Amino acid sequence: MDFAYDARTEELRARLLAFMDEHVYPAEAVAEEQRALLASPWDTPAVVEELKAEAKRQGLWNLFFVDQHSLPDAEYGAGLTNLQYAPLAEITGRSPHLAPTALNCAAPDTGNMELLAQFGDEAQKKQWLEPLLAGEIRSAFAMTEPEVASSDATNIETRIRRDGDSYVVDGRKWYISGAMNPDCKVFIVMGKTDPDGTDLRRQQSMILVPRDTPGVEVRRAMQVYGYEDHSHGGHAEVVFDNVRVPAANLVGEEGGGFAIAQARLGPGRIHHCMRLIGMAERAVELMCRRAVSRTAFGKPLAQQGVVQNWIADARVTIEQLRLLVLKTAWLMDTVGNRGAHTEIQAIKIATPRAVVDIIDKAVQAHGAGGVSQDFPLAELWAAARTLKLADGPDEVHQRSLARRELKKYL
Amino acid sequence: MDFAYDARTEELRARLLAFMDEHVYPAEAVAEEQRALLASPWDTPAVVEELKAEAKRQGLWNLFFVDQHSLPDAEYGAGLTNLQYAPLAEITGRSPHLAPTALNCAAPDTGNMELLAQFGDEAQKKQWLEPLLAGEIRSAFAMTEPEVASSDATNIETRIRRDGDSYVVDGRKWYISGAMNPDCKVFIVMGKTDPDGTDLRRQQSMILVPRDTPGVEVRRAMQVYGYEDHSHGGHAEVVFDNVRVPAANLVGEEGGGFAIAQARLGPGRIHHCMRLIGMAERAVELMCRRAVSRTAFGKPLAQQGVVQNWIADARVTIEQLRLLVLKTAWLMDTVGNRGAHTEIQAIKIATPRAVVDIIDKAVQAHGAGGVSQDFPLAELWAAARTLKLADGPDEVHQRSLARRELKKYL
Amino acid sequence: MDFAYDARTEELRARLLAFMDEHVYPAEAVAEEQRALLASPWDTPAVVEELKAEAKRQGLWNLFFVDQHSLPDAEYGAGLTNLQYAPLAEITGRSPHLAPTALNCAAPDTGNMELLAQFGDEAQKKQWLEPLLAGEIRSAFAMTEPEVASSDATNIETRIRRDGDSYVVDGRKWYISGAMNPDCKVFIVMGKTDPDGTDLRRQQSMILVPRDTPGVEVRRAMQVYGYEDHSHGGHAEVVFDNVRVPAANLVGEEGGGFAIAQARLGPGRIHHCMRLIGMAERAVELMCRRAVSRTAFGKPLAQQGVVQNWIADARVTIEQLRLLVLKTAWLMDTVGNRGAHTEIQAIKIATPRAVVDIIDKAVQAHGAGGVSQDFPLAELWAAARTLKLADGPDEVHQRSLARRELKKYL
Amino acid sequence: MDFAYDARTEELRARLLAFMDEHVYPAEAVAEEQRALLASPWDTPAVVEELKAEAKRQGLWNLFFVDQHSLPDAEYGAGLTNLQYAPLAEITGRSPHLAPTALNCAAPDTGNMELLAQFGDEAQKKQWLEPLLAGEIRSAFAMTEPEVASSDATNIETRIRRDGDSYVVDGRKWYISGAMNPDCKVFIVMGKTDPDGTDLRRQQSMILVPRDTPGVEVRRAMQVYGYEDHSHGGHAEVVFDNVRVPAANLVGEEGGGFAIAQARLGPGRIHHCMRLIGMAERAVELMCRRAVSRTAFGKPLAQQGVVQNWIADARVTIEQLRLLVLKTAWLMDTVGNRGAHTEIQAIKIATPRAVVDIIDKAVQAHGAGGVSQDFPLAELWAAARTLKLADGPDEVHQRSLARRELKKYL
Repeated sequence: MDFAYDARTEELRARLLAFMDEHVYPAEAVAEEQRALLASPWDTPAVVEELKAEAKRQGLWNLFFVDQHSLPDAEYGAGLTNLQYAPLAEITGRSPHLAPTALNCAAPDTGNMELLAQFGDEAQKKQWLEPLLAGEIRSAFAMTEPEVASSDATNIETRIRRDGDSYVVDGRKWYISGAMNPDCKVFIVMGKTDPDGTDLRRQQSMILVPRDTPGVEVRRAMQVYGYEDHSHGGHAEVVFDNVRVPAANLVGEEGGGFAIAQARLGPGRIHHCMRLIGMAERAVELMCRRAVSRTAFGKPLAQQGVVQNWIADARVTIEQLRLLVLKTAWLMDTVGNRGAHTEIQAIKIATPRAVVDIIDKAVQAHGAGGVSQDFPLAELWAAARTLKLADGPDEVHQRSLARRELKKYL
Repeated sequence: MDFAYDARTEELRARLLAFMDEHVYPAEAVAEEQRALLASPWDTPAVVEELKAEAKRQGLWNLFFVDQHSLPDAEYGAGLTNLQYAPLAEITGRSPHLAPTALNCAAPDTGNMELLAQFGDEAQKKQWLEPLLAGEIRSAFAMTEPEVASSDATNIETRIRRDGDSYVVDGRKWYISGAMNPDCKVFIVMGKTDPDGTDLRRQQSMILVPRDTPGVEVRRAMQVYGYEDHSHGGHAEVVFDNVRVPAANLVGEEGGGFAIAQARLGPGRIHHCMRLIGMAERAVELMCRRAVSRTAFGKPLAQQGVVQNWIADARVTIEQLRLLVLKTAWLMDTVGNRGAHTEIQAIKIATPRAVVDIIDKAVQAHGAGGVSQDFPLAELWAAARTLKLADGPDEVHQRSLARRELKKYL
Repeated sequence: MDFAYDARTEELRARLLAFMDEHVYPAEAVAEEQRALLASPWDTPAVVEELKAEAKRQGLWNLFFVDQHSLPDAEYGAGLTNLQYAPLAEITGRSPHLAPTALNCAAPDTGNMELLAQFGDEAQKKQWLEPLLAGEIRSAFAMTEPEVASSDATNIETRIRRDGDSYVVDGRKWYISGAMNPDCKVFIVMGKTDPDGTDLRRQQSMILVPRDTPGVEVRRAMQVYGYEDHSHGGHAEVVFDNVRVPAANLVGEEGGGFAIAQARLGPGRIHHCMRLIGMAERAVELMCRRAVSRTAFGKPLAQQGVVQNWIADARVTIEQLRLLVLKTAWLMDTVGNRGAHTEIQAIKIATPRAVVDIIDKAVQAHGAGGVSQDFPLAELWAAARTLKLADGPDEVHQRSLARRELKKYL
Repeated sequence: MDFAYDARTEELRARLLAFMDEHVYPAEAVAEEQRALLASPWDTPAVVEELKAEAKRQGLWNLFFVDQHSLPDAEYGAGLTNLQYAPLAEITGRSPHLAPTALNCAAPDTGNMELLAQFGDEAQKKQWLEPLLAGEIRSAFAMTEPEVASSDATNIETRIRRDGDSYVVDGRKWYISGAMNPDCKVFIVMGKTDPDGTDLRRQQSMILVPRDTPGVEVRRAMQVYGYEDHSHGGHAEVVFDNVRVPAANLVGEEGGGFAIAQARLGPGRIHHCMRLIGMAERAVELMCRRAVSRTAFGKPLAQQGVVQNWIADARVTIEQLRLLVLKTAWLMDTVGNRGAHTEIQAIKIATPRAVVDIIDKAVQAHGAGGVSQDFPLAELWAAARTLKLADGPDEVHQRSLARRELKKYL
């Protein structure tokens, strides 16, 4: 249980921190200005491509890729462990609209690349994984459905029906992150191939659906507290109406969808939590800067006990969250994602709600500016809040974790 | 301390509830559709004007106007007391984007009309109050400034300089609600006429600035958690650059700005709290409807203890908030706004934070839908959250209330 | 819904406040000193009997007794309504160890007297109600059992078996408040006469068991966070082992126990909540006095923002609780206990937890003194905390209230 | 930052866990029974001495002693690091009334022994440290005063006046833990030798006062929420009235008291937090056992969502606390107590309040039993709650930690 940053981590952190200071933070305002002038807000501002090129040049590229089977000579990515990647992901969370994309470490592409590397066949890797690793295209993961509690995969209503050499996909999905970006060229769609199967965890399959397949309709951008998340490619409602793709597009085997989804979720959750901690650090920094510069009732906010308590509690909370995330990363490295199941669930419960509260206090310290577009806080809040729901609401994870705890006493 | 709804209140409630069911709720979707087709999102959808006409026809118009001096034969408005108006305002809060405007009871016009009625001279009333009462124009109240903690009026940086028969206004304001609506024809601007005056509460004055005066620039729409609040006329940043208006535009006397602002704020706060309770009721209704219709883990949310606790606690909280608001209204009616100072502050502290929490639970119960544009919850949340800041952050009111409590023991 | 204190209430409040200042507060220290010298800590200090005599002389006696059937010429008590009694009960809560007893308004005797008045026959009234009304004896209500969740009366395990002209009682009870006091001469015992009856709400009966009946063993004093509550007669574990009493001791009819218990609980809950508000007021007063007198880091606590927030929030909370309790009292007076069911449940949920938090802040403001016997705060806290459990844990009431709220949507 | 339990830790953990199961837990009830029969409740039950003898025999003795200067061949104690001791201290926290004393690892003796080892001269070590290490006597640390906010040492009012070859001590202390135990033979008293000195941190000195010195009066046992903490030797009010001791009793030099106190507090805080985590684990275990065995509304508590959330959140919280405590221990080992200052403060803020909440939920799950003497929960709660005050209230630490955080931005 050694969480110390090793030499490689320290070296990468130093380079990444410099990259943030020199390139990412200055690009934040630029990206907003460029986006305002684009034909579509879903297009990519030029500065983002410049950041990607620079990151690639500096070797800060695909850092996320933990190939558990081929370490240390990883086939893909930088060959880092989860523990090495965690502090880097945290840093990217400080500028979540730019930094993850700049490093080709943005969700949902990261999870999709891992999925293709682990479960895709050679043709699938060639067609989709390679351009994704190169940052030439984006991708989406189509699981959530509007009509059912789809955090329980047995509720999935999308159908994937075999028809000769093809599969035909029918269903409606929403909050498909990234799908509004025209560079998003492929959907990994979760649906049921065997809806009446007795094994509830073998009903589902996953299939690759190219964006330009007839019957695919990217219908509209779903909002998140008024935000459309342009920089993330938004969150689309997507309808699949009699969409026919070659049978070879199936990922893995029929009935393997549930297992693939499970395998995908663990790393995704820890990445989210790492970045959330970076978001919290950004909020604390902004709160402190505000506190030393704004005066009310004759003294700076920094000298007022209520604001001091917000800052102290934020620091105390972040320290605990970070350690739990690092432990989880270390467990994933040492005993695998399955062995880290409780801890993955624990950080999924603990991190969003704590970070939501920290950011909320930073908003309050900023007055009207806090809810405005002039500071990143309100949008960070919305992103953090949504993670109490995304990938299963808190209550699902609390229930599951409690049942495991109770099992000892039954 | 009789909070019972009297006959007139009951009669108006019945009519207003019918109006909501027959006209307002059905218009919610219509208004969104119409707005999407307008030349500017700041223009007013036709259905809103239809609602206004219908409300006027039904006598559900200007209900807010409590003229403390001329009761019962009120010069303006419906001649209701605060206690009579409170339950009506609560009902309008259930559809906050439409109902208050439909009844000509929307902020900030309500406060501006009260201000003009109380402090305006005959010419000012003729020019601005009459068309406001008729719902022909809208208005804005320009107090908040981006660079200072303007909840403390001594920090105001806008200057109002006498120059012959004119005043010249210079300053920058933001979060000027309603100002993005082109129908907003006049600003009541708070600034300092005597910035070096020794009496800190006599430095400020208020002045009427028509929107089309040279030097007035409505620069941009400020956001609230990603929302622009089109239906409320948004929240603008407005720059006053060497804006010259006739000296007769001053409201009241030079140095009277602080006192006028104080007089304006009390009723405004109680209106906000009344509507917040209506918003909370809407959220509880949506949460209950969701709970009985959505199933997870084999049983409806309505049978799950965690959701039951959310609902029970929401009901318990709302009951308490409503009683405190009613008591405050009753106090304002019987001992005046000044005598109700502690209670006005108490509801300002208690209501937004409680309602924020209730709506947040309703969001959680809706899953991804909760943060989306398909349910009103996320936008209601943003509105409620902002009221923890608007009109003075909670911490200012807590400090003030505590000092009054402590005074007994000094 | 008129909560104003009428003339009689105001007059009684004035007299009661004077009685508190002149007699009760000064007796607090005296009672403690006298108790330390008693042969048994369960005996009654002389000053308590003096207080009772003085209260009786002043007509501040049996104020609690709301006889819904015989108003205004009440057969028992002072003939007050719940709404008239509420503010008086609140005042007694400021000194909860002395004032309720001094006025013969202490639980559980109050509920027991109401029960006997409503359901007792003439002989039972003569034998037990009259000396209770005179303050000559005390009584206990034996419902809670250690082995089952007895807030659900269908779980009760105590048996009341008919045997000729007698009933034989067998069972074990605990947290039987008042039973450690040797003046407690009678137990009203809840048990099952028909444990296998198909109507789950007709299995239970209530029976009067004199303390000196063979087979009654008052086994030990149960603690509450280390306190034994001497002044309340403690909370006893009582074993009934083959206890034979005349059949005439049954209260009401066989199978009527559940209904009697329900009738008894409503008023008891509101009395507890009234007194809790008085306890909260005492805590706020102590917190304020401490805040103005204790200095840390160079300035009084009263000028520190964190303490100010505690005080402000306490005031805001108390105002809301009091209004909800008054509304509940008013409802009980106007539509009866059954019609006030939701509100009774709401105050039972809302009051203890809010008051627990207020007292906890007062404890914190007192440093080590807060947890000590030198201030009443720690003991007040324990009493308030226990009311989150007593008479059904919060979760039971939340569940029930939520189900009623949800019923509208089913 | 390697928190893994090394071989020695694992070996000691295994032995300690066995010792708990075989000796400590079975002794809990025995100790209570024996104490009830003692002449004085402050005497030590025989079973405690048996536990001490057994622990000494098994080498589970003085584990706490981290001698930073002489590792690995420690002069005193078991030669463990803080990181090695932490998980052992946690285990003792599961039975806090017996286990720490059994292992001679109980506060305040631990801190006092460290203090004597570090600052005492040879004669002082011979007279006091040796019997303390042998578990033959107990000791107390007399710092807190009733009249001032003594968490700020500049407020200390006790005087230590030089008079020839003696010092004369005058002052009043309270909450002097352990002092009610007659085996407590010596007080380390903090007082001012130079109350008017310009250097506020050089006014204080520490001096050894044997219990039997004339003028020492152990006046009374202070309570903690109704508990007297017999097993800890209570918390005494002690008056020093013209108490004369040899000048050689001074610990360190005149004016060194503040520095000595600072050195003593760090380890003490981490020990408290370690044990608190053990207390939380005990509470979770009890809550789970209750949840699987108690039924309400037709199903076990373990299947009810609200209770599941309590359990899940407790687990998630404990995991985070433990990691932060381990990190703090590791920092103390590697960069010293001063370098771990922020983390020591962070665990002092985070741990008591989180554990208070966890235990409170366990109490609630136990119904009336939870507040009683039949389960250890209520007493554990009182102990945890008091640690939000002991050794400086939370607010002091929050303020200090915030100021350090803000310093970066000034």
